[in-house]
Amino acid sequence: MTAEGALTGALLIGAADVPGSAGEFRAVDPRTGARLEPAYGEAGPDEVRRATELAQQAFAGYRQTDLETRAAFLESVADRIDALGDVLVERVRAETGIPRARVEGERARTTGQLRLFAAVVRDGDWLGARIDPAIADRRPQARPDLRQRMIPLGPVAVFGASNFPLAFSVAGGDTASALAAGAPVVVKGHPAHPGTAELVGRALRAAVEEHGLPEGTFSLLQGAGHSIGTALVTDPRIKAVGFTGSRSGGLALVAAAAGRPEPIPVYAEMSSVNPVFVLPDALRRQGSELGTAFVASLTTGAGQLCTSPGLVFALGADGVESFLDAAAAAVATAPSAPMLTSGIQAAYTAGVERLAATERVRTLARGLGDPAIGAPGRPALFVTDGDTFLAHPALHDEVFGAASLVVRVRDTAQLHEIVDRLEGQLTATVHAAPADVGAARELLPRLELIAGRVVFNGWPTGVEVGHAVVHGGPFPATSAPATTSVGTRAIERFLRPVSYQALPAELVPDELADGNPLGIRRLVDGVPDRH
Amino acid sequence: MTAEGALTGALLIGAADVPGSAGEFRAVDPRTGARLEPAYGEAGPDEVRRATELAQQAFAGYRQTDLETRAAFLESVADRIDALGDVLVERVRAETGIPRARVEGERARTTGQLRLFAAVVRDGDWLGARIDPAIADRRPQARPDLRQRMIPLGPVAVFGASNFPLAFSVAGGDTASALAAGAPVVVKGHPAHPGTAELVGRALRAAVEEHGLPEGTFSLLQGAGHSIGTALVTDPRIKAVGFTGSRSGGLALVAAAAGRPEPIPVYAEMSSVNPVFVLPDALRRQGSELGTAFVASLTTGAGQLCTSPGLVFALGADGVESFLDAAAAAVATAPSAPMLTSGIQAAYTAGVERLAATERVRTLARGLGDPAIGAPGRPALFVTDGDTFLAHPALHDEVFGAASLVVRVRDTAQLHEIVDRLEGQLTATVHAAPADVGAARELLPRLELIAGRVVFNGWPTGVEVGHAVVHGGPFPATSAPATTSVGTRAIERFLRPVSYQALPAELVPDELADGNPLGIRRLVDGVPDRH
Repeated sequence: MTAEGALTGALLIGAADVPGSAGEFRAVDPRTGARLEPAYGEAGPDEVRRATELAQQAFAGYRQTDLETRAAFLESVADRIDALGDVLVERVRAETGIPRARVEGERARTTGQLRLFAAVVRDGDWLGARIDPAIADRRPQARPDLRQRMIPLGPVAVFGASNFPLAFSVAGGDTASALAAGAPVVVKGHPAHPGTAELVGRALRAAVEEHGLPEGTFSLLQGAGHSIGTALVTDPRIKAVGFTGSRSGGLALVAAAAGRPEPIPVYAEMSSVNPVFVLPDALRRQGSELGTAFVASLTTGAGQLCTSPGLVFALGADGVESFLDAAAAAVATAPSAPMLTSGIQAAYTAGVERLAATERVRTLARGLGDPAIGAPGRPALFVTDGDTFLAHPALHDEVFGAASLVVRVRDTAQLHEIVDRLEGQLTATVHAAPADVGAARELLPRLELIAGRVVFNGWPTGVEVGHAVVHGGPFPATSAPATTSVGTRAIERFLRPVSYQALPAELVPDELADGNPLGIRRLVDGVPDRH
Repeated sequence: MTAEGALTGALLIGAADVPGSAGEFRAVDPRTGARLEPAYGEAGPDEVRRATELAQQAFAGYRQTDLETRAAFLESVADRIDALGDVLVERVRAETGIPRARVEGERARTTGQLRLFAAVVRDGDWLGARIDPAIADRRPQARPDLRQRMIPLGPVAVFGASNFPLAFSVAGGDTASALAAGAPVVVKGHPAHPGTAELVGRALRAAVEEHGLPEGTFSLLQGAGHSIGTALVTDPRIKAVGFTGSRSGGLALVAAAAGRPEPIPVYAEMSSVNPVFVLPDALRRQGSELGTAFVASLTTGAGQLCTSPGLVFALGADGVESFLDAAAAAVATAPSAPMLTSGIQAAYTAGVERLAATERVRTLARGLGDPAIGAPGRPALFVTDGDTFLAHPALHDEVFGAASLVVRVRDTAQLHEIVDRLEGQLTATVHAAPADVGAARELLPRLELIAGRVVFNGWPTGVEVGHAVVHGGPFPATSAPATTSVGTRAIERFLRPVSYQALPAELVPDELADGNPLGIRRLVDGVPDRH
């Protein structure tokens, strides 16, 4: 950057700083309502086209980088984000109101994720190498040599999310997994944190330059309007889209992508209420502790997490009052917290009012009000019964923020009916004590059909970035239920298999060459190759 | 069935023979134009609903069958198809006009495919088992135990294809891979071969009964209209669709699936012209032989193969006349062949007439006419130059049948321009002699971006069913470019990952249990588990 931490308000298009041509906008400090400098220029159609043209030009070279170069590049991005130090932390705090400890935790997750994908790249398993050798004497016809590997789809558009300004934004999971796959990335930063986006974007660009990669490997577009996103998704050079955000936003991108002459996949992580099921023995033994722990999960990040527990189903009468009392007490002493944007705050307030006004839904507790902050996300806890929940489909909807509805469920039959009517979810959580094992065994096959991750005796907030995690799930949790946007499997979203038949030895890529020069895992006639 | 080979015209809905309620239709022998007995009842909305309800009921039980039971079931289906013997061969011949040797070859491919998926099921690699063990002493938080596996999406609708009455039909690749994944299947048979569909459907149903599987594991619906397909794809119990057929048909299903309250994936294999690139040294050395071999591929199956070579690009002047002369001679002596249906015949005739009428496109040869057959698919060969090809986008379109266009390409630059403007393809083929290696090296990265399979010094027709094959490709070759509809990877289309966090040991499924009781390949912390 021009000087450490000096923000310019420019778009980062390949190696060039470009002023936006379609108006300007500023970030707002949600803690104070103050508008932040500098002004950011919005990308117009020319800037979108320039970024995608560069990405297309970069594709041929970037996708053929060797594994070590690509891995080292991802590690450089992580190192450079770390090196931004407090300049980055303070800008994130100013643009989002997220407390320091969470910002630092999110930064560690973000850089850890980049380093994990570097390891994934080196490992080479993602190349999906398979060889079915020729069988010259097969009858009636000889069998030809076939070799298969994964190649990247092409340039990827990534949309930054409001609630994870680092981990799901410019150098977040979508970007890391796309770059790992060999796909150039054009990011559309979230307009709530353009300065954070610029800082991280410059770190990423510097890593591109350090490793001599084509400049179009990465560009950062910014803008507060919707037209830039539509322009990006409908650009013919873009071949896949990663998005984390609202259901309406995700569905708009899905529709735009489906309407292209060449439709492309949109990996949108959209909407989830993350139901929690407290089974009778757990409720009886631990009602009070679970009530307290539930609210700790609910109020994390002012409830602005994709995995925030928005519904709790309590089965059984014994202990339910303890659970409700403890939860109500925890909510009543929970402070309000600034929400990420005024739009999110307005939607939260409307959602809470809608819940409060629903017949047979009782407001159990509200958090502490705090007139000193500009956008108070005041926690809210509601309670109803299973019949009411089944009768009001609107009670299934996500209220993004620290609001949750506890549903007292009559019996197992009603619990199963509820589960079977829930929409797709990122997570489903079960609290089960020893005597609940039978009930849990009945519940589990239903829950795995509606959720990407099933949690036992824990809480859905807090997503591990590893190999076995799934951050995904059936519609409307995501637009692509067979994928995950967190963890090492996320790379698969940007790859497709290609098969080579009777490829001359001098043209065979290293990952498929005889003798396995890369030393990667391969299937030969369907059996793992020893190396 | 009621007696071996005795066709009833009934729909096979679970264990019941059900008469269709929405009219009736009959197959036609394309060799004679004769209408064949029996009449088939068309499925109406009630029958569609009944089949999907049974499939949904079967899902919970079928998906939890142990690997050995599921594998043995698939093998039984293969054995029972083999046991149909000549009854099946003759019915296929009567309904499609396909010669005996090809029917027998397709039957072997179909049963081999079922047995291959049985081996895939037993192998267990498709379960994608991953374990990230807990780390209790990690700071700042303990790491929870996470275990991931693949589960099936739910009941799958499969549409039979006209051109592969066995291999892409009732018990074809889509059905075999969906059943392997643990998904019940509702097949909509192709109306051109309802008797073939009934014979194979009864074999499949008998295998369901033999293994004590839920009756809704398989149903066969039939019908000649479009409404049954729409009803099936928009039925909320159906969770994925497999289709092989026309671009318009595939896109209609994609649109119907996208418009559902819960959109679902459609794996449609649609349209491909399978370009062949003959490089200068190959043209010079082998022009004549290549011309003859090309026409052998073109006329296979009367050109009614998804991988039929509809475009040939010849680079260089030396040898091109030999290539054209040999190809023209081969076409001129190639017999006409009955096409699969009158609709396909009409579209073929129109396509050939369109090519013949295009300015600067010359008709090089037509096959032998045969007034004795009802629907003569008379081969047709055309020639043009690269400038004309680039100027007429309609010349890129598929003409389904034994018609092909040879394009004389001026130079490498024009060849690259052409490749970059081609739509997505199932295959791309290169003929390269030793001196062509440099040109092939430049061409390969372009071809792999537009095709699912790149063939060297061979022909695209003939698709191996193995581990390393890809029968897929960028849009419009398919609606889902990251998948294949042939080969062992096809199972992945019907699966999605689920992650279990801190699952109690007594609830852990065998594939994720400590000690690896199934002995399958698993990743532990991203590293292959030894067993």
